[in-house]
Amino acid sequence: MRLRIINPNTTTAMTDKIGEAARRVAAPGTSIQATQPASGPVSIESHFDEAISAVGVLEEVLAGERQETDAYIIACFGDPGLLAARELTRAPVIGIAEAAFHLASLVSTRFSVVTTLGRTGIIAEHLLEQYGFHRHCRRVRAAEIPVLDLEENGASALDRIIDECRRARDEDGIGAIVLGCGGMADLTETISREAGLPVIEGVTAAVKLAEALVGLGLGTSKYGDLAFPRPKPFIGRFEGFSHLTPER
Amino acid sequence: MRLRIINPNTTTAMTDKIGEAARRVAAPGTSIQATQPASGPVSIESHFDEAISAVGVLEEVLAGERQETDAYIIACFGDPGLLAARELTRAPVIGIAEAAFHLASLVSTRFSVVTTLGRTGIIAEHLLEQYGFHRHCRRVRAAEIPVLDLEENGASALDRIIDECRRARDEDGIGAIVLGCGGMADLTETISREAGLPVIEGVTAAVKLAEALVGLGLGTSKYGDLAFPRPKPFIGRFEGFSHLTPER
Amino acid sequence: MRLRIINPNTTTAMTDKIGEAARRVAAPGTSIQATQPASGPVSIESHFDEAISAVGVLEEVLAGERQETDAYIIACFGDPGLLAARELTRAPVIGIAEAAFHLASLVSTRFSVVTTLGRTGIIAEHLLEQYGFHRHCRRVRAAEIPVLDLEENGASALDRIIDECRRARDEDGIGAIVLGCGGMADLTETISREAGLPVIEGVTAAVKLAEALVGLGLGTSKYGDLAFPRPKPFIGRFEGFSHLTPER
Amino acid sequence: MRLRIINPNTTTAMTDKIGEAARRVAAPGTSIQATQPASGPVSIESHFDEAISAVGVLEEVLAGERQETDAYIIACFGDPGLLAARELTRAPVIGIAEAAFHLASLVSTRFSVVTTLGRTGIIAEHLLEQYGFHRHCRRVRAAEIPVLDLEENGASALDRIIDECRRARDEDGIGAIVLGCGGMADLTETISREAGLPVIEGVTAAVKLAEALVGLGLGTSKYGDLAFPRPKPFIGRFEGFSHLTPER
Amino acid sequence: MRLRIINPNTTTAMTDKIGEAARRVAAPGTSIQATQPASGPVSIESHFDEAISAVGVLEEVLAGERQETDAYIIACFGDPGLLAARELTRAPVIGIAEAAFHLASLVSTRFSVVTTLGRTGIIAEHLLEQYGFHRHCRRVRAAEIPVLDLEENGASALDRIIDECRRARDEDGIGAIVLGCGGMADLTETISREAGLPVIEGVTAAVKLAEALVGLGLGTSKYGDLAFPRPKPFIGRFEGFSHLTPER
Amino acid sequence: MRLRIINPNTTTAMTDKIGEAARRVAAPGTSIQATQPASGPVSIESHFDEAISAVGVLEEVLAGERQETDAYIIACFGDPGLLAARELTRAPVIGIAEAAFHLASLVSTRFSVVTTLGRTGIIAEHLLEQYGFHRHCRRVRAAEIPVLDLEENGASALDRIIDECRRARDEDGIGAIVLGCGGMADLTETISREAGLPVIEGVTAAVKLAEALVGLGLGTSKYGDLAFPRPKPFIGRFEGFSHLTPER
Repeated sequence: MRLRIINPNTTTAMTDKIGEAARRVAAPGTSIQATQPASGPVSIESHFDEAISAVGVLEEVLAGERQETDAYIIACFGDPGLLAARELTRAPVIGIAEAAFHLASLVSTRFSVVTTLGRTGIIAEHLLEQYGFHRHCRRVRAAEIPVLDLEENGASALDRIIDECRRARDEDGIGAIVLGCGGMADLTETISREAGLPVIEGVTAAVKLAEALVGLGLGTSKYGDLAFPRPKPFIGRFEGFSHLTPER
Repeated sequence: MRLRIINPNTTTAMTDKIGEAARRVAAPGTSIQATQPASGPVSIESHFDEAISAVGVLEEVLAGERQETDAYIIACFGDPGLLAARELTRAPVIGIAEAAFHLASLVSTRFSVVTTLGRTGIIAEHLLEQYGFHRHCRRVRAAEIPVLDLEENGASALDRIIDECRRARDEDGIGAIVLGCGGMADLTETISREAGLPVIEGVTAAVKLAEALVGLGLGTSKYGDLAFPRPKPFIGRFEGFSHLTPER
Repeated sequence: MRLRIINPNTTTAMTDKIGEAARRVAAPGTSIQATQPASGPVSIESHFDEAISAVGVLEEVLAGERQETDAYIIACFGDPGLLAARELTRAPVIGIAEAAFHLASLVSTRFSVVTTLGRTGIIAEHLLEQYGFHRHCRRVRAAEIPVLDLEENGASALDRIIDECRRARDEDGIGAIVLGCGGMADLTETISREAGLPVIEGVTAAVKLAEALVGLGLGTSKYGDLAFPRPKPFIGRFEGFSHLTPER
Repeated sequence: MRLRIINPNTTTAMTDKIGEAARRVAAPGTSIQATQPASGPVSIESHFDEAISAVGVLEEVLAGERQETDAYIIACFGDPGLLAARELTRAPVIGIAEAAFHLASLVSTRFSVVTTLGRTGIIAEHLLEQYGFHRHCRRVRAAEIPVLDLEENGASALDRIIDECRRARDEDGIGAIVLGCGGMADLTETISREAGLPVIEGVTAAVKLAEALVGLGLGTSKYGDLAFPRPKPFIGRFEGFSHLTPER
Repeated sequence: MRLRIINPNTTTAMTDKIGEAARRVAAPGTSIQATQPASGPVSIESHFDEAISAVGVLEEVLAGERQETDAYIIACFGDPGLLAARELTRAPVIGIAEAAFHLASLVSTRFSVVTTLGRTGIIAEHLLEQYGFHRHCRRVRAAEIPVLDLEENGASALDRIIDECRRARDEDGIGAIVLGCGGMADLTETISREAGLPVIEGVTAAVKLAEALVGLGLGTSKYGDLAFPRPKPFIGRFEGFSHLTPER
Repeated sequence: MRLRIINPNTTTAMTDKIGEAARRVAAPGTSIQATQPASGPVSIESHFDEAISAVGVLEEVLAGERQETDAYIIACFGDPGLLAARELTRAPVIGIAEAAFHLASLVSTRFSVVTTLGRTGIIAEHLLEQYGFHRHCRRVRAAEIPVLDLEENGASALDRIIDECRRARDEDGIGAIVLGCGGMADLTETISREAGLPVIEGVTAAVKLAEALVGLGLGTSKYGDLAFPRPKPFIGRFEGFSHLTPER
């Protein structure tokens, strides 16, 4: 199967890292294509960054539809554009936040999230509520490191994340930790070893969930509210979306 | 005060109608500026349409910030880009869905929503959950009319909406109805008269809520998670958003 | 429009203060009439005080109905008698707790409440649950000052409130604070300046919400469960409520 | 033990009926004193009736405190004045709505409520939410009979209630029915036999819960938010409540 | 009435203690039969212990059905086998966790649970959610003592429980404490005196709730989803459950 | 990887069918071992059947632990013994109800469950609440067929299930259907084709989720409340569980 992982930001180093993390866990028959939008922010740390990045995510899904693509992953912890992306394809589309929440709830009864900046905690909270996991998550914590510090100051960023994970382990009454940023995809093993409890990271979780759905022949339902969008004119720089008629 | 009402779709007739509806209820000192994005879909009837429209909404907020603007309204019932827009300004930003829910809960104990297409019901459901009104809303109903039918087949669309409102009144155990589309902004009075119970429409509701906040000197909190986005590079066609440093 | 603000307790100094706070934010055409019951407690600091005060609130609504009254405000943070008051009139009736919660949720994603006595926190909690804002409120805090200390020991009471607001700001992960007592109506500006984030006070919030509803021609729904009460005999000292037949 | 059952309305026939129903189920050592306020509405069918009736309920509790009273019951399905009454005494105070909900949840997994008038359904809904039973209750139904019809048109009222209970049984997926009015206290056995499933009535349920608490030496907690109200001046016709200092 | 209290573990000393606690609060006409399974764990401190203990609980209910039994109590704080037990009988079946939660919510607005081991906290949390009391419970606390320490190191165990109860009282904003283990049935009075607020213990609470239901002629509904199980073959060591046809 | 699928009932034909369904979707490296308890009911259609079956499930997990086992599946829609089983192993343990709910929420926004008997609906409801999916599930429906009819009257049972699924599709506003019985594992494809929307079946869903977790090196957390049970004596026929010391 062909799996398209879309890093919603435009930092190539992060796209590469995400792709590598995905390949490390992919099943033998899974080919990973890691992409990023042509346009958009270099990191996603606000509702604003996220809203802009969604356009690129959707274009990457449409690009995937022109090739053979069996499943999509949206590799930013806010799951930007997730439901919109699902409308564009019969394939499954998985967000890394939802993927991590789902798997965390299968190996523990309660978990905490450790993310980058405190200001994005509300994004995680809203997703936990929408997906149904707000009672399973004891606390959303932030290590207060900007996303790109994960690229540029890896060692010190890692230390801060590990510290926060240990606090979560000791104070929150949890059995597992969810890492709240796609840029942490390469840190899972280290953090889990240092913190001494299961650590779930969304990119790798999403790869396996995508394989699971494809393996079952399950894709996004086209019956009901995730059906293809009604074709219609778009104007201006979004004219290219006009009269979109995805294969039905 | 200067109030910028952003119609997130690109249908001028609808922008005009929304502007007129707003002016009819505006207080004497309120000047209404009704705008629409330069780019985007002619109507919003899916998560996809909504995600794309959010970019235009945000550009319209940034445009408003370059002028004197005291408050913003996002005039599509899915409140596209609402939290992102709030990050861009100290002024209040109100979505018409939230506005209608808030006021409906002040004049009734339970209400129903009557919207255009069934497929957008899930958008209303998610907002009701996020805003806290899911127990106040008995049911999200759809008249099953495309948004632009409100422009092009007004009379027959109106009939269908009135019929659905009457069913809501008779079957749902409610005290009020929320109209679930910005394109219904001119129909409130007629529908309320025909249905015989209070009908709350979001554009007009949002105008008065915006006036309320401005009258109190209240704007979007810049303390915490709605602070201005961290400035950063954007690439490609979104390069213009780079190093955004709104007045602080 | 004529707006009747009912201070549910019988302390004239507080009624005056509430009236002044209301007038400071009222729109040009709004005339404020601040009243208080002829009978009742001098302050409201328990379920008991609140239950007794509701009678006076309802009498003040009935008195308002005998004049021209366009909207009512119940100016105690427990919103005593709110739904009963709504049954008595076609005009809107707004409680100051609900008013503050509504507006706080429009300028922040999460807020805390700072009230007078810890024992009344449960009243706020119950209202947050009934109105749908319990997830938006991080914490209900008390400065542990009796209500009338706001009148009699203003400076020291203010200090304690500011201290508690700062703790809320630093510990709760919020963007705004709701002041939990009608007697704080004159302190909003000072507290907001000292605490450095938006502070929402219910009396002023309610004035603007009342203006909003009246401006839209919206009043309490008389369809369904807020219809006028069925007329019937009352005995004893409540005989005056017998065969109440408000204008329909 | 001495159990004071307060019928919050002023219809003696109903007070007598409630007293009789209570005596039928009381344990040997329980003496039942059925009382009603000196002042108030003849029936309770609205928020307004309920708010006024709460005063009489509280006076009856204070009267009980001047005698030996081991427990109180508030015998109207809206539980008017419940938390205020609890503040006034160390004895347990039980509302008949809560009593019925508690016991219904012990003999079935899901129940429905059958009450008198549709307009009072919202009162039951709010209580179900506050008490925590909103998921256990499938539906709040009304037979659409005024409360006093239970006194004056007993046979036809009974028929309508039985019909509604049968519909609940056949359509709601329930195991038990809660009768939603103190005036139905004498009908339980007949309705249960006709409907063929357990029927829980609040007056009798409350008697047994009161006996349970007294038997355990448990009374209303005076630690925390149900402590005695702070003594203070009341003015006007409520002057008698001034400087209330219940035995501590 | 004949009340069968089933201690789900196999420690006779605990069964005796539970029986004595029950007898101390039982009404004159109530005869208490305290039993324990022939097979099972000596204490219940995990989901595993609980699942195994449920079999013994159900056998004890079936044994009770062969005698005259008017009500059953399951005396372990996880309420093991509760819904299954209800299927086997027309009599009421009460779990001690649910009993304690119900009564605690009648004497306070918010309570905390103090249990033995932290690892069983999740069991209490799941029950609070299922029964509807999760908002009434502020916190589930553990004294971190193994269950049998209550038998073997009574004094030091008691000290730790009292300490934890005092912390709950001082930090949680509560009015009452629920003791989270059947083995604490003899400690209620001491703890309540030491902690200075109402302490609710499940065994005694369940006795009075069972008396309440029996006194009302209420038993487990046999209409709907708690009907007797469909008779069917069981194989192996559970063959004895085959073709079970309880008296209907 | 070695995957042990435990059919909690003792009907070999069903175990075989479940094993075949699992093998059809298993990845190349996954070896499926379908087992059933030595003791227990031939089908599971009540809380009672479920409680008894849990013992056999746990014995099958312990048996698996004595071999090399990489993951476990509990193949009955009530997920009997799930949390207890997780305590016994470091491997992942997946219930088929949770598996189906998780995957259904990834391909649709709302789903309905179609199960066998109405009386087991409450089991699904409780699981939906505990797992967090109660808002995602519109309705739990029953075809009202006994479980073993799936073996013995396959054709007519299938017709009834398809009919119920079509009603769910047409009436519930959903995008997918969850089949609520392990015995339906071979019907998924037919039902999905006949109903025209995605149909998620738990056995196959659980196989892929188990592969996902194992592929990530994730197993049940042994930190916190799913740690191995404390070893202790068991008596009687459960003596074999005494002093259980799973590999740590």
